[in-house]
Amino acid sequence: MSYVGLGDPGAPMALPAPLHGVVPPVCTPLGPHGEIDTASLTRLVHHLLDGGVHGLFALGSTSEAAYLTDAQRATALETVLEAADGRVPVLAGVIDTTTPRVLDHARTAAALGADALVATAPFYTRTHPREIAAHFRHLRTAVGLPLFAYDIPAAVHSKLSPSLVRELAGDDTLAGLKDSSGDEGSLRRLLTALGGRAARRTGPAPGFSVLTGSELTVDAALLAGADGVVPGLGNVDPAGYVRLFDAARAGDWERAAAEQERLVALFTMVDVGPEPEMGRSSSALGAFKAALHLLGVIDRGTTAVPQRPLSDDAVAEVGRRLTSAGLTPVR
Amino acid sequence: MSYVGLGDPGAPMALPAPLHGVVPPVCTPLGPHGEIDTASLTRLVHHLLDGGVHGLFALGSTSEAAYLTDAQRATALETVLEAADGRVPVLAGVIDTTTPRVLDHARTAAALGADALVATAPFYTRTHPREIAAHFRHLRTAVGLPLFAYDIPAAVHSKLSPSLVRELAGDDTLAGLKDSSGDEGSLRRLLTALGGRAARRTGPAPGFSVLTGSELTVDAALLAGADGVVPGLGNVDPAGYVRLFDAARAGDWERAAAEQERLVALFTMVDVGPEPEMGRSSSALGAFKAALHLLGVIDRGTTAVPQRPLSDDAVAEVGRRLTSAGLTPVR
Amino acid sequence: MSYVGLGDPGAPMALPAPLHGVVPPVCTPLGPHGEIDTASLTRLVHHLLDGGVHGLFALGSTSEAAYLTDAQRATALETVLEAADGRVPVLAGVIDTTTPRVLDHARTAAALGADALVATAPFYTRTHPREIAAHFRHLRTAVGLPLFAYDIPAAVHSKLSPSLVRELAGDDTLAGLKDSSGDEGSLRRLLTALGGRAARRTGPAPGFSVLTGSELTVDAALLAGADGVVPGLGNVDPAGYVRLFDAARAGDWERAAAEQERLVALFTMVDVGPEPEMGRSSSALGAFKAALHLLGVIDRGTTAVPQRPLSDDAVAEVGRRLTSAGLTPVR
Amino acid sequence: MSYVGLGDPGAPMALPAPLHGVVPPVCTPLGPHGEIDTASLTRLVHHLLDGGVHGLFALGSTSEAAYLTDAQRATALETVLEAADGRVPVLAGVIDTTTPRVLDHARTAAALGADALVATAPFYTRTHPREIAAHFRHLRTAVGLPLFAYDIPAAVHSKLSPSLVRELAGDDTLAGLKDSSGDEGSLRRLLTALGGRAARRTGPAPGFSVLTGSELTVDAALLAGADGVVPGLGNVDPAGYVRLFDAARAGDWERAAAEQERLVALFTMVDVGPEPEMGRSSSALGAFKAALHLLGVIDRGTTAVPQRPLSDDAVAEVGRRLTSAGLTPVR
Repeated sequence: MSYVGLGDPGAPMALPAPLHGVVPPVCTPLGPHGEIDTASLTRLVHHLLDGGVHGLFALGSTSEAAYLTDAQRATALETVLEAADGRVPVLAGVIDTTTPRVLDHARTAAALGADALVATAPFYTRTHPREIAAHFRHLRTAVGLPLFAYDIPAAVHSKLSPSLVRELAGDDTLAGLKDSSGDEGSLRRLLTALGGRAARRTGPAPGFSVLTGSELTVDAALLAGADGVVPGLGNVDPAGYVRLFDAARAGDWERAAAEQERLVALFTMVDVGPEPEMGRSSSALGAFKAALHLLGVIDRGTTAVPQRPLSDDAVAEVGRRLTSAGLTPVR
Repeated sequence: MSYVGLGDPGAPMALPAPLHGVVPPVCTPLGPHGEIDTASLTRLVHHLLDGGVHGLFALGSTSEAAYLTDAQRATALETVLEAADGRVPVLAGVIDTTTPRVLDHARTAAALGADALVATAPFYTRTHPREIAAHFRHLRTAVGLPLFAYDIPAAVHSKLSPSLVRELAGDDTLAGLKDSSGDEGSLRRLLTALGGRAARRTGPAPGFSVLTGSELTVDAALLAGADGVVPGLGNVDPAGYVRLFDAARAGDWERAAAEQERLVALFTMVDVGPEPEMGRSSSALGAFKAALHLLGVIDRGTTAVPQRPLSDDAVAEVGRRLTSAGLTPVR
Repeated sequence: MSYVGLGDPGAPMALPAPLHGVVPPVCTPLGPHGEIDTASLTRLVHHLLDGGVHGLFALGSTSEAAYLTDAQRATALETVLEAADGRVPVLAGVIDTTTPRVLDHARTAAALGADALVATAPFYTRTHPREIAAHFRHLRTAVGLPLFAYDIPAAVHSKLSPSLVRELAGDDTLAGLKDSSGDEGSLRRLLTALGGRAARRTGPAPGFSVLTGSELTVDAALLAGADGVVPGLGNVDPAGYVRLFDAARAGDWERAAAEQERLVALFTMVDVGPEPEMGRSSSALGAFKAALHLLGVIDRGTTAVPQRPLSDDAVAEVGRRLTSAGLTPVR
Repeated sequence: MSYVGLGDPGAPMALPAPLHGVVPPVCTPLGPHGEIDTASLTRLVHHLLDGGVHGLFALGSTSEAAYLTDAQRATALETVLEAADGRVPVLAGVIDTTTPRVLDHARTAAALGADALVATAPFYTRTHPREIAAHFRHLRTAVGLPLFAYDIPAAVHSKLSPSLVRELAGDDTLAGLKDSSGDEGSLRRLLTALGGRAARRTGPAPGFSVLTGSELTVDAALLAGADGVVPGLGNVDPAGYVRLFDAARAGDWERAAAEQERLVALFTMVDVGPEPEMGRSSSALGAFKAALHLLGVIDRGTTAVPQRPLSDDAVAEVGRRLTSAGLTPVR
C-alpha cells in the first residue's frame, strides 16, 4: 500500500511519559453506504478537542475497527490525525489476530503518522502467555513507536496478568496499558506492583502509563493511581470526563464521584436496544452514535454491517438520557 | 435435626438498616482430623471483634462452607454466634444448589440464632433469571430473617444483574447484596440505580445494604456509595479494613487509598502456592489460614479435603508478607 | 440420620464388570406440594424395567438431585431400590460440592443399599486436577462401593481429562465413567487409551465401564467402544434405547443409527419451553416429565422449585412429539 | 492489491452437491524467515492428492490463516490452486472479524480462482444470531461463490445453532457447513432436521454439505449422515482418512471404526508440547508440521510468529507416534 497524497506525516509526537488524562476511543461515523464520513469524523475530533481531551485513540473497539477494511482504517486514521493537527497525541489501534497481521497495521499506522500503537493479545487462536509476551516484543522491535497493550478479555478471550504487564513494562516493551478487562482488582494489583500511588514514578517502570477503559469506574481507577481513562462514552460527553479527571487530579474525590455518577446514568443509553433484539455490542455502539447524531456532531448514527440498527423508539430514548444528563440534543 | 443443648437462641438482632462496615467472612479453623476447631474459631472471632469489625459472616466461601458437612456447618455457626455473643450481627451463609436444599440450611441457621441469611443464586443447574428471582422470594417468604443475595459468578456461574437486584431490593425480598462478582462497573450501575451517593437513603430501597466482597477495591466501592465490605483478607487484618472504612466514612480518600494499597500488597500472599501445583482457591484459603496460624490466632493452617496444603516454603513466604505489611508473626 | 423401617438393605449386588447397556437416570416425580411421589416413582421404575434397561441411576442430574433435600434424596433412592428389587443394579448419585459433603451422601447411599456411587468433581470451588484425583480416591477409600466418575462440565465447570480418568481407572479408584461432557473427541481418546475396541478387556483397566450421557450420539459412542448409555430421554422411551443398544451389540450399525435418529427427533421436545421464557434445564426436565405424564407413567409433570413450569401449549407440543416418534399418549 | 502474473484464474469449478469426502485444511509451510515456502506447499498438495482426498481447504485455522498477512494468504491460496490444478475443488477460508473485512478476503479469493468460500461467524465483537445470519447473507450476495459456514466456537466464541444453519441452508445462503464445534449432539440434531440419513437428499436443503472438522469422531459423523470431513490430521495421513471414508461409504462400520482408532492414536502427537511450556494450538500445529517434515513432505516444521516451537525431544516423540501408526519417517 502507498499513501500518495498524504504528504509527510512528520515525526510522531513525543508522548508525555506517562500518557495521562482523557483519551477517548474515537467513534467512526459512516455514510449511507458504509463509507467513512470524514466530514463527520473531523467534527467529532473537534468536539473531543473542544471538550479538553488529552489524547485520541483511533481504530479502537469503539471505533468499530473490527468492522473497517484496511482502506477504511487508513482513511479513519488519516482523518483523525489531520483533524487533531498535532494538538494531542493520536494512538492508533492495530487490532488483528496475530503478530504478522498486526505488524502490517502497525507499519501503516507509523507511515500515516500515528504517535503510538495499541495492540491486543492475539485472538482467534489460543495463545500461551509466553507467546503473548513474544507478540508484544516483536511489535515493539519491528516498529519504532511507543506501544500500549490493550487488555480486553471480552474480545480476545484471554487476560493479561499483572505479572506479565509488569514484566513488559519493566523492560520497556510497553509504554502503557489500556485496561478494558473490567477486573479492577487485577488493575489494583498491577498499580501496587508498579510502586503504588506514592512511588509509581520512582518504581520499576517510571514512565509507564496505566489507562482504564472502564468508563463507569474512572474515579476509582484514578484514586488507585491510574493515569487516565479511555472512555467510549467520552465521545458523547468528553467535557464530563475531563471534569472528572480534573476533580481527581485536584484531590476532590467527592466531586469526581458525583461526576462519575452522572456519567453512569448517561451510560444507561447502551441498554435501549435490548438483548432479545440485538447484541450488546451493537446496542452500545448504536447508542453512542445516535447520541452524537442527536447532539449535532455527526450526520448519521449508522453502524457498520452486520450490526442491527437501533429502532426509532430506542433513539428517542437515547435523546431522553442525554437531556437527563444535562446535554442538549439539537435534533 | 435438633440442637439440644444449644439453649434458646433468642430472637435475632435487629440489623442496622442498612448493614454497613466491615463484615469479614469468618475462616473455619480445622483440627488434625478435619474437625471444626472450636477453640481456634472462638479466638478468631475475638480477633475480629478486637479489630473493630461491624458484623460477621459465617459459612461463606472463605469459611470453606462448601467443604463442611451439615453437622460441621451447624457447629461452626453455633461457635461464631456464641463467641460473638450479640456484640455484632452474625450473617449465616446458606450455600447449596437450589431452593429446597437452601431452605434446609436456612431453617437450621434460623434455629441456631443467625441474624440474617446470605444465599447465592442456584448453581450446578442452569437457572433462568426469573427462576433466580423466584428462588430468593421463596427463601424470604419461608424464613423470617433478613436475606442477602450473594453474587459470586466465579462459583455459581451466573451473574445477578443490577436490574434483578434492584427489583428484589425494591419489593423487600432482599435486605442487601454481597457483591463478589468483581464487576465494579455493574456495582456502580446498581448503586446509581438505587439513588446514588446522595439519594440512596431516600431512593427506591432506602434500607438496602450494598457490601462489596472485592477486598482489593474497597476504597473504590465506598467512594461509589457502597455500605461496607466482606473481605476474606479481613480475617488476617481486620483492623486494617476498619481503618480503611473509617477513613472513607470521614471522607479522607487519600488515607483510605493508602490503607487499601497496603492491604493489596498483603493480599499477594494468595499467590505463594502457584498454579502448576495447586488451585487458586486452595492457595488463597491456605494462605489466609497460614497467616492466622503465624499470627497466633488459630492452632493450625489446615484446609479441608481435598485441597492441597501449602508447602513449608510457601508458609514462610506468607510470614514475610505479614511482616512487610506491618503485622507481627508470633511463630 | 437413621433409616428406621428400612430393614436390612442387604449386600449390594455385584456389578457386571464392566457395567454395560442402558442405565437411565431416573426422573423423580413430585406431588402437588413438591414431595416425592413414591407411587409414581415406583411406576416409573417398572416402566424402565419393562423397557429392558440394564441398570438404574438414581439421584442424577435428570433426577433433579440438585433440587432434592437430603430427606427427599433418601426417599427417592429407597423407592428406586425397592421398586428395582434387585433385578438390575442401582447406581446412586452423590452430588454435592466437595469431598466431606459427598461422603455424607455416599454413606447414606451405602446404608440404603445402593450398588454403586456416581460422583462429580467438586464444584462451587475451583479445584486443581490433583485435588480432583484426591477427591475420588477419598470417596473410594471411605466407602466400600464401586465408584463412577460423573464428568459433567456444564454443571461443575471443569472437565475430567482422559489422562486423569485413565489414571484413576488403572489404579481401581474408579469402576467406570459417566461421560456427560458432550466432548466426543475426548471420549474417543479415552477409549483408545484404554485399549480401544479390540483390546479394552485386556487393556490397562479391563473391567472399567465407559457410559455416555450424551443421548443423541449413543450409536457413535457404542461404535467407538463405549459400554453403555445413561440417557435422560431413556425415561420416556427406554425400549428405544434398548433397541439401539441391541442393534449396536449385534453390529447392525445402520439399524442403530436409524433408531438413534428417531430418538433425536423425539428429543426435540426439550425445546418446547423456549429460552426467553425459561431456562434450558427446566425446559428439558419439564418436557421429560410432561411426556411421562402424558404416557400415563407418572401422575404429574411437576418440576421442583424454583423451576418454571411448561405452558399448556408446550405440553401439547410434547404430546405431538411423542406421537411423531411412535409413542402413544394416554392423556 | 493486484495479482499481476496470476493469469486468468478461470471460472470456478462446479462443486459436487453436496461436497463430500475428505477435504483437509492444508497446512502452510514456512521458510526460515516466516515466508511461505511455496515449493513445500506444492509438495504438500501433491501428497494430499496422492492420498486420494476429495477437496482442499486452504487458509483454514490449521493453515495458520490467522497468522498470515494478506499477501501471504494470497500466495498460499495461489500455490494451492496451482498445485491442485483443477483436480479437486479448492475451498478458501476468509477468516476475519466482521463482514466488511471478510468481504475483502472473499473478493481476493474469488479473483484468485477459489471454488468456494469458508467463513466463520464474526469474532472479536459480540454478535447477535440475527447479525450472524445477516453476515452470511451479505457474503453470499456480494460474492458469487458457494459459501460454507465454519462453526468454530473455540476460536470465535459463539456457536451456530442447528436452527440457524438450517435456515441458511434452506434459503441457499449456505452450500454447506464445516462443523468444528466438537458438539456432536448439535451436529446430530442438524442432520436430523435436514431429513436424516434416509431423507437428506430430498429434505429441505438437498444439496447442502455437512462436513465435520472433528477428526477424532469421523466414523461417528459419517454414521450420522455427514458428507465428509475436514481433518487437520489429514495433512499427515490423508490416505488414512480416505480409507476411513471409503469404509464408511461401503457401510463397513467396523473397519471405519478401526481406522478411526488408529488415527486417534496418531493424533496424540498434539500433546507432545505440553501446556506449561506452550499453548495447545501451537503444540498441535507444531506437531502436524513436524510430522510432515519427518515424512519428507515439507522442508521445515516452522510455525508462525509468535508461536513457540516444539523442542527436539517433542519432535522425536512425534516421530515415534508416526512409526506406531504405521507411517514411515524419512528423517
